[in-house]
Amino acid sequence: MTSQTDTSAATDAAIAYLREHDAEHLAQLDEFLRIESVSADPARNDDVRRAAHWIVDELTSLGIEKATIHETSGHPIVTAEWVHAGGDAPTVLVYCHYDVQPADPLDEWIRPPFDPRHEDERVYARGAGDDKGQLFMHLKAVEAWMKTADGLPLNLRFFFEGDEEVGSEPVEQFITDHADLLRADVCVVSDGDTFDDDGTPAIGYGLRGIGYWEVKVQGPRQDVHSGQYGGGIDNPANVLVRMLASLVDGDGRFTVPGFYDKVRDLTDEEHAAYAALPFDEASWADETGVPAAMEGERDHPLLERLSARPTFDINGIWGGYSGEGSKTIIPAWAAAKISTRLVPDQDFREIEQSVKAHLESIAPPTVRVEVKTIHGGAPVVTPLDHPGVAPAVRALEAGFGKAPLFQRSGGSIPVVAALDAHLGLKTLMVGFANPTGNFHAPNEWMSMRNLRDGTVSLVHLWAELGAMRASDLSTD
Amino acid sequence: MTSQTDTSAATDAAIAYLREHDAEHLAQLDEFLRIESVSADPARNDDVRRAAHWIVDELTSLGIEKATIHETSGHPIVTAEWVHAGGDAPTVLVYCHYDVQPADPLDEWIRPPFDPRHEDERVYARGAGDDKGQLFMHLKAVEAWMKTADGLPLNLRFFFEGDEEVGSEPVEQFITDHADLLRADVCVVSDGDTFDDDGTPAIGYGLRGIGYWEVKVQGPRQDVHSGQYGGGIDNPANVLVRMLASLVDGDGRFTVPGFYDKVRDLTDEEHAAYAALPFDEASWADETGVPAAMEGERDHPLLERLSARPTFDINGIWGGYSGEGSKTIIPAWAAAKISTRLVPDQDFREIEQSVKAHLESIAPPTVRVEVKTIHGGAPVVTPLDHPGVAPAVRALEAGFGKAPLFQRSGGSIPVVAALDAHLGLKTLMVGFANPTGNFHAPNEWMSMRNLRDGTVSLVHLWAELGAMRASDLSTD
Repeated sequence: MTSQTDTSAATDAAIAYLREHDAEHLAQLDEFLRIESVSADPARNDDVRRAAHWIVDELTSLGIEKATIHETSGHPIVTAEWVHAGGDAPTVLVYCHYDVQPADPLDEWIRPPFDPRHEDERVYARGAGDDKGQLFMHLKAVEAWMKTADGLPLNLRFFFEGDEEVGSEPVEQFITDHADLLRADVCVVSDGDTFDDDGTPAIGYGLRGIGYWEVKVQGPRQDVHSGQYGGGIDNPANVLVRMLASLVDGDGRFTVPGFYDKVRDLTDEEHAAYAALPFDEASWADETGVPAAMEGERDHPLLERLSARPTFDINGIWGGYSGEGSKTIIPAWAAAKISTRLVPDQDFREIEQSVKAHLESIAPPTVRVEVKTIHGGAPVVTPLDHPGVAPAVRALEAGFGKAPLFQRSGGSIPVVAALDAHLGLKTLMVGFANPTGNFHAPNEWMSMRNLRDGTVSLVHLWAELGAMRASDLSTD
Repeated sequence: MTSQTDTSAATDAAIAYLREHDAEHLAQLDEFLRIESVSADPARNDDVRRAAHWIVDELTSLGIEKATIHETSGHPIVTAEWVHAGGDAPTVLVYCHYDVQPADPLDEWIRPPFDPRHEDERVYARGAGDDKGQLFMHLKAVEAWMKTADGLPLNLRFFFEGDEEVGSEPVEQFITDHADLLRADVCVVSDGDTFDDDGTPAIGYGLRGIGYWEVKVQGPRQDVHSGQYGGGIDNPANVLVRMLASLVDGDGRFTVPGFYDKVRDLTDEEHAAYAALPFDEASWADETGVPAAMEGERDHPLLERLSARPTFDINGIWGGYSGEGSKTIIPAWAAAKISTRLVPDQDFREIEQSVKAHLESIAPPTVRVEVKTIHGGAPVVTPLDHPGVAPAVRALEAGFGKAPLFQRSGGSIPVVAALDAHLGLKTLMVGFANPTGNFHAPNEWMSMRNLRDGTVSLVHLWAELGAMRASDLSTD
C-alpha cells in the first residue's frame, strides 16, 4: 500500500494517460467491436474465439500474467491475473463478457452492426454497451495504471466469458473446477447501465434471474388446406396462441402454479426508495416509441415492475405463412421462444420445471407440444452495507462528477449468482452502458461520455479498493 | 342433337382416344405443371402469364375459337369458346384456375414442387390437384371430342383465371364487363375434390366463403432488452397472442359480435345427410398426422364443421427472434395472417368490416394495431334439384364406376358466388382432386386414377348435357 498522496498522484497520472490516448483507444475499441462474437450463432464460433484471443493478446501486452483461453462446453473463457500488490492488498475479480447478442433484424441498423459508427458523441455497434465496450474500459483502466505506475494498486484477477448472451451454461462448471483462478475478496461486474443518459452513475445491488423456453406445437404432418380441414383440425397456431395467452391473467400475473410462492416482497424501505427515484414515465415510454407504458401488476409502480417483479415475455413467435398476400393453410406447427425474468427468492430450477410441466399439462389432446428449456439463471441481491460499496460510490462520483444511485437491474447476469453460490463471492455491479443504448436491439450504442467517465471511475475504483486491507473487504 | 346411339358411339370413340394418348397427355401435364404460376409472388408474374399463354395455345390448337388473354388488375384471364352445336343445344361455361399456391416450405417437398414426379400411380407437383391438373383434364376431354367427332356435342365457353389463390380480386369486374363472353345455361367448375381416395366421385353443392386479414401489433420503435424493459413495455407478441386467443371462446365459437347472426342453420334433412355419409374420424385424423380431431363447436359433428360451419384460423404468425438459442428481447412488433371460412348466408363484406373493427376495438392503448383486409369471398349453395345435377350424376357414375355423393366443400371459390350474383348463372361443382392430395401443402398430388376417370367423366358430361335442350337446362 502506498500513501494517500502517492495514490492520488498516481491516479492523476493514470487519468492523464487515458486523456492523451483517447483517440487511439477509440480506434482500438472499434477493432474489438468489429469481431462478430455472436455466441448464439454456431456459424460465428470462430469469431467468438477470435474475440477471446484478442483479449488475451491485449492483457499480455499490458503485462497482465497467465492470460489463458480455457476450453468449455460452450465458448472459451479467458482468465488472467496480476497479483503483485502485496499480501495485505485486496484481490478483486473482474467479470465481463465478450460475446454479443445476434444482430438481426439487420435491416433496422443504420450501419452494419459490426462496422462501428461514431456519431453524436456515441459509438454505435453491436456490443458497444453490452458488454464489449465495458470489458474494453476495464482493459484501458488497467493499461492506464500499468503504463503510468509501478503496476496496479491492488491484485486483480480477470474472468471474461463468451456465453453470457446464451445463458452462461459453462460458467458454473468452470467456477467449481477453477476456484483457484477466481479467488478474490470481492467481484466487480461491469455489465449493467448508468442510472440515466445524463451522466448519473449507478451501483446495481440486484439482478433478475431468468427462465427461457422454446415451445413447439405440432399439428398435422404438414401444412393443410384451411378450407378442406378448417373446423376439424385444431390449428397449431391457434393452440399456441391460446396456451400462451392463458399464461397471463387479467391482472398481468403469470398463471403457472406456484410461480409467486417464493417472490420476496419489497420492504417498505424498498418501496420508498423506488418511489424516490427520479423518473418520468411518459418520457421513458416516449423514448421507446410506445404510445403508453403497460399496466402490469397492480400495487407495483412501473419502476418496481422493471426490476423487482417477475415478467413474462414472448421473445419470438413463428409458424405458417408470412409472405406476400395470403396462403389459406392450417400450418403444420407453430413455435415460440418465451421467458420469465425472476426475482429473489424464486428458484429458477424449480421454475424451469414448473413452467415446462404447466405448458405440457395445458396442451390439448389434438396436438403434440414440445417444451425445451433453453437456459436459466438465479436472481441475486447484494447487501448495500457491503464494505466495497462505499469505495465504489467514491470512485463513481470521482469519475462522473455525480453521486451514483442504487438500482436493481431488470436484467440477468448468471455468473453473479454462481460466484456467490460456489465461492461465497459478493459482487459490486458497476455498469456503464447507457440505459437507452439499444442493447439486444438494432443500433446499439454507448456514449463517449460514459466510456470516458466510466474508465476514469475504474481507475479511481482500483485506487479506492487498493487503499483498503484485504481483510476489511472480504465478507468470507 | 344427335341420336342416343350416335352419341354413345361418339363417346366411346372419344374415350378410346384418351386411352391411346394417355402417356402423351401425362407428359403434357408435366409441361403445364412445370410453369411456376404462383399468383401470390410478384416475382413469378411472368410465369403466371406464361401459363395463360400455354392454355391459349392449347385451346387454339384444338380448334377452340377466340382464345384470348385479357389484362386485369391482377393476372390475365383466359376466355375461349366453341359454339357450333346449334341453336337448341345448351351452352356450358367451364371455369378453372391456372394459378397455384406458393410452394413453401420448400424443404418439406420430396422433389422440387415444379419438377413433377410420377410415383405410386400419382402425379406429385404444385398444382397437380389444385387446379392445373383439373384444368388440364378439361382440355383433354375437349381434345378427345374435337379429334374424334365432328366437334363438341354442346356449346362450351371457357373462363380460366390466374388469381384464385390470392382471392380472385379481378373476376367480379371481369364478369360485369364481359358478360357476353361468359353467357351460358350453366357453369361447370372443377376446383374441388372427389369424395374419397377410393374412386368415389362427388358433386359439390356448397362452398364456404372467406375473409382474410393481416394484423400487426407494433410496440416499441425497435426490439428492446427484455430485462431492461420487461414489466414496463407491453410486449407486442404477448398482446397479439392475447387478442387472437380472445377471438375464440371456450365452445370453439368466434367471438366477433354479430358473426353468427346470418349463419343459416342446417335443416334436419341436411343433418341427416351429413350423418349418413361414410366417414371414419379416426382414420381421417390419422391421415393428417394429428393425434385427434378438434372438438370445435358443440352440436356440430366433425363433417358438418368441415364444410357447413364457419371457422377461424391463424394462417401464419411471426415476430421477434426465431433463430438458434435465445435472444432476450421484447420484439418491436408481431403480426399474423388470420382468416375465417364463411357459410350461407354470412355476408363477407359485413364480416370484413366487423372483424377489422373488433380487432381495433380490443387493441390495448399500449400498442398500435393495424388490421389490413387481404381478401374475401361469399359462401354459396347450389340447389340439388337443378336440372344439370342428374346428367352430372350419370356422367360421374359412367366415368368412375360409382355413383357420386353430394357434398358441401369447406373451401372457397369466389367466382361461383360472383357468377350467380351478376349473371344468375348456377354452378355444378364437379371436382377431381384427391381429398388427401395436399393441396396448399408440400407434396401436392393427384392420382392417375382420378385424372383418367375424371377426364372420361367430362367426356360423358358433355354428351349428357348435349342430349338436353338449352331451355331444359337453364334456370334463368
